[in-house]
Amino acid sequence: MERLKKQMEFALEADKEKYIFRQTHLSDGRRENDAEHAWHMALMIYLLREYSDEKINVARAMAMALVHDIVEIDAGDVYAYDEKGAVGKEERELKAAERIFGMLPEDQKKEFTELFNEFEKRETPEARFARLMDNLQPLMLNDSHNGADWRARGIKKSQVRKRQSGNENASLKLAKLVDEIIENNVRKGNLQDE
Amino acid sequence: MERLKKQMEFALEADKEKYIFRQTHLSDGRRENDAEHAWHMALMIYLLREYSDEKINVARAMAMALVHDIVEIDAGDVYAYDEKGAVGKEERELKAAERIFGMLPEDQKKEFTELFNEFEKRETPEARFARLMDNLQPLMLNDSHNGADWRARGIKKSQVRKRQSGNENASLKLAKLVDEIIENNVRKGNLQDE
Repeated sequence: MERLKKQMEFALEADKEKYIFRQTHLSDGRRENDAEHAWHMALMIYLLREYSDEKINVARAMAMALVHDIVEIDAGDVYAYDEKGAVGKEERELKAAERIFGMLPEDQKKEFTELFNEFEKRETPEARFARLMDNLQPLMLNDSHNGADWRARGIKKSQVRKRQSGNENASLKLAKLVDEIIENNVRKGNLQDE
Repeated sequence: MERLKKQMEFALEADKEKYIFRQTHLSDGRRENDAEHAWHMALMIYLLREYSDEKINVARAMAMALVHDIVEIDAGDVYAYDEKGAVGKEERELKAAERIFGMLPEDQKKEFTELFNEFEKRETPEARFARLMDNLQPLMLNDSHNGADWRARGIKKSQVRKRQSGNENASLKLAKLVDEIIENNVRKGNLQDE
């Protein structure tokens, strides 16, 4: 049962993702944590899977969503528009992946590391669709409370556009939806249009 | 785009699952919410899928985990050992399912309602494995902080056994693990053995 013991130790370690708070706020003013975000993303991958322009393995895309932020247990969350905080992020996350996925049996260490790397590289249909959801989910939340997070930080339309680029390679329909949400928030003054 | 509009309204409504707190505590003393629990459950389904004694469609089992507590947005969480609170639970949840899944396009209302019902009925291999994870995840957390939730409420071994029954129909190995965790906590005095 050495194998199961390692898997359970990893399952318990993953629990710490609930303590990693993001910059996105929920409607009650509390910040969202990584576990909540990953749940919401995975749910939306399932809900909106018909919009993927390429055929996807839904289980794999959902697994990517569930796993993609586990490295932040060690590496921390970096706000989407924090260029300073992003320096060294990749190295920190690789080191975290080594430690945390390294708790697993060898084959699963490999499997989970591959899921994480695939998500980051965005080169497969599953990764492209999962990454789109990593963009759309916080955009939807921010839009729902009238762009409060953008307004608080004076975020520009061009920054959001940059962050959301690549969505069109996963789903033209959802990329169009993202554009509409951005334009709506520019009109309302929630995003600065320079 | 009427269809996508409905789906996005549902995705935003689902966000409220983050406000439904369970009786299970995290190691920092905060109560766990339904979204965090569902994330952890879905992750553990993926992680431990090799232990299912029957072949399962992993995407379907994960989707069940992601969806199974959405009804609690209206119906609230009932503690596993609260017999009084459980009165009328089924009716409240069916009403909630009707309202919340009713926000979706007709075909997806049907699909999500079926996922929810399948999970509740526990008659398919996917439902049996997902339900096992719904039991194992809080047991693991409770075990990790020395049974604090059981001790605080004077929970008996027989109550936990009852709650965990049925696991053996999904995975003999994981059911055995559950037994070991229970016996361990009885030995430590965290669970009352009458």
